[in-house]
Amino acid sequence: MPKIAYLECARCGHHVSADTPQTLCPLDAGSLYVRYDMDELRRTASRDRVAERAAASPRSLGMWRYADVLPEVEPVSLGEGWTPMLQSKRYSGLLVKEEGANPTGTFKARGLGLAVTMAKHYGLKHLAVPSAGNAASALAAYAAAAGIKAHLYMPQDVPLANHLEGVLYGADVTLVDGLISDCARIVGETIKAQREAGTPAEDIWFDISTLKEPFRVEGKKTMGYELVEQLGWEYPDAVFYPTGGGVGLIGMWKAFEEMEALGWVSGKRPKMYALQATGCAPIATAYDAGAAASEFFQNADTVAAGLRVPKPYGDSIILDIVRNSGGSVVASTDEEILASIADWATNEGLFLSPEGAAATAAYDKLIASGELKSTDRVVLFNTGAGLKYVDTIAEAIKLRRPQLLPKSLPVGGIITPV
Amino acid sequence: MPKIAYLECARCGHHVSADTPQTLCPLDAGSLYVRYDMDELRRTASRDRVAERAAASPRSLGMWRYADVLPEVEPVSLGEGWTPMLQSKRYSGLLVKEEGANPTGTFKARGLGLAVTMAKHYGLKHLAVPSAGNAASALAAYAAAAGIKAHLYMPQDVPLANHLEGVLYGADVTLVDGLISDCARIVGETIKAQREAGTPAEDIWFDISTLKEPFRVEGKKTMGYELVEQLGWEYPDAVFYPTGGGVGLIGMWKAFEEMEALGWVSGKRPKMYALQATGCAPIATAYDAGAAASEFFQNADTVAAGLRVPKPYGDSIILDIVRNSGGSVVASTDEEILASIADWATNEGLFLSPEGAAATAAYDKLIASGELKSTDRVVLFNTGAGLKYVDTIAEAIKLRRPQLLPKSLPVGGIITPV
Ligand SMILES: [Zn+2]
Ligand SMILES: [Zn+2]
Repeated sequence: MPKIAYLECARCGHHVSADTPQTLCPLDAGSLYVRYDMDELRRTASRDRVAERAAASPRSLGMWRYADVLPEVEPVSLGEGWTPMLQSKRYSGLLVKEEGANPTGTFKARGLGLAVTMAKHYGLKHLAVPSAGNAASALAAYAAAAGIKAHLYMPQDVPLANHLEGVLYGADVTLVDGLISDCARIVGETIKAQREAGTPAEDIWFDISTLKEPFRVEGKKTMGYELVEQLGWEYPDAVFYPTGGGVGLIGMWKAFEEMEALGWVSGKRPKMYALQATGCAPIATAYDAGAAASEFFQNADTVAAGLRVPKPYGDSIILDIVRNSGGSVVASTDEEILASIADWATNEGLFLSPEGAAATAAYDKLIASGELKSTDRVVLFNTGAGLKYVDTIAEAIKLRRPQLLPKSLPVGGIITPV
Repeated sequence: MPKIAYLECARCGHHVSADTPQTLCPLDAGSLYVRYDMDELRRTASRDRVAERAAASPRSLGMWRYADVLPEVEPVSLGEGWTPMLQSKRYSGLLVKEEGANPTGTFKARGLGLAVTMAKHYGLKHLAVPSAGNAASALAAYAAAAGIKAHLYMPQDVPLANHLEGVLYGADVTLVDGLISDCARIVGETIKAQREAGTPAEDIWFDISTLKEPFRVEGKKTMGYELVEQLGWEYPDAVFYPTGGGVGLIGMWKAFEEMEALGWVSGKRPKMYALQATGCAPIATAYDAGAAASEFFQNADTVAAGLRVPKPYGDSIILDIVRNSGGSVVASTDEEILASIADWATNEGLFLSPEGAAATAAYDKLIASGELKSTDRVVLFNTGAGLKYVDTIAEAIKLRRPQLLPKSLPVGGIITPV
């Protein structure tokens, strides 16, 4: 495992030390990337060593099979990463990366697994996060495993699973009458107030928001390593990625850069498709307008809770990556998303999250328009398990639950729902 | 992958051919085990070959890494098996086998993955199952992937996730005002009626119930192979297994027999602990009474839906295994189960299923009584993700959901639940 050389600002290139916990670039509030000594990495890390490390461990290492390109630290692990890559039964080129197999049921486990690992390394005692739901669940789980207190701020109509997970994991849970953007503001104001009140340093919360600290991106970059390794160290033609905060997309792009620098992969990088819901489509709107950054998306509302991010902090990075790769941004309606959930469950045996179904719905549209062929090699991310959305999906499809029958009814009285 | 030599009755030893689909022993209705030519297996299968097969595949093979000891057939796979084995943070000897990482979120994916694989191989068109919930979900998913029609019978108060999954996967879902035993009776009567009505053979449902066909046990035996391989091809001191139908326990014991015959493991087999809920404890009752078989457990009622099996078909096999291994059977109350869920979430970052928590609650009791030491090497199965029980657990712990506030409330109005 390599030492971190420095943290680098994505905007101005300024270097910051990783010896103490960092948030944003002190010069321009840009996001910080983790950088290593690449000459050292070329000597110490290799594709063969990834395979050897994995083969030498009797248990699955999960994302820590890539320990040679991750910070040198004792992992807080719940078994995250190295998720299944499933062949679609209908489209010969389409592979689904099943991130629902992660701890807490979503890809968020990768980023927060590493971010909490580093927080423990730094000795932080309080971590706070504004979240559409799944990041809060993952933070709560890893914080519990690490013995750190988690403070979660989520919209009040967050899926029941996220609320319950937060409470069970022993986090401090606050539901807010607003969106993730309101949650973010409250976290920021709370920390500011703590500072102004002269709160002892160790009691001040650390904001572990998307792109406001360097290690969530760094954990999620393992998705990029994995998809390339699982294709035999080759790039696919395209990557389909449901985009709320967009950290996964940014992390994968970083992985591609690193792997090329290390000589682990070559050739044309995949076209990156960012998929959104029409009920909250700031990136799609900016992409269509040819804008360099997004504007706050008003009245965000979609069944895909994870996509309800009205203005992603990394919007300009996401737009850059999509454009440079030759991909695009496609938004789907909730009706299309729900139809795609049913389609994939019935025809492929996969219960996608609404976010994953925003990607499959977009895939269908691009196949229909001819922009894609079904033989094009596409890796599509199901970012979470459909099981995290049981209450919202049951409500959306109007699943009829039977009323409890009187116990006097003869046993075997049958109720058949729709 | 080996050819099946024959199917063998667990009661009388009678041999049946595997060339056509089989249910129970035609002589005495005993369960059938899959048997191979062990001399052939000794020549063709080895621990090294398991590792080589896994290393040669860029993606995870899941349970199919053990293809050399599974039937020769084209797998219907959704990424099942090779689940994380997690070190407890509090008990140095305790390892948790996290079966919640499987497709559909439970260990049922292993047994039904193989059973549906074989059903497709045999050309079956209709599969029926009585289920406490999770077996139905898994059958529905694999049947969808295989293009087979699934017919599910579950208690009407089954967790919402199981109901929704069945409907989404396109299964024929029936909720019954009764228990899994009533569901089983209805499936049996329906098939009998189909036969008597002269229904064409391909339209008659195949009953894929626990232990009423040979391949669910065969799929679940991979848990036995995995736990031994993940301990470096050694036995633990004890295995803790939440026991409803008990197929996993039976399957693991079969795996131990096979691995010993193949020379893959040696030494004392683990003590097998079967864990139940006091609200439905037929095996615990029989064990305490020194009986060879269980009696129907009246008024079964527990938050651990998967343990609500009033009379397991394999009861005598389960009791034999527990006694021969030197283990025991322990039942826990719903209060103990819910407390253990909260304990493990808060202190280890794991959201156990109620069934898994029946095992952790029993572990606590055996540690307290001195029957176990915290340094004893124990592999404890969390048979499913807590996420499959969000509605029932939220209700049991009286999680307070906020009322939707009027939109006129100032943004940032905060609601803090318990
Ligand atoms: Zn900067
Ligand atoms: Zn027999």
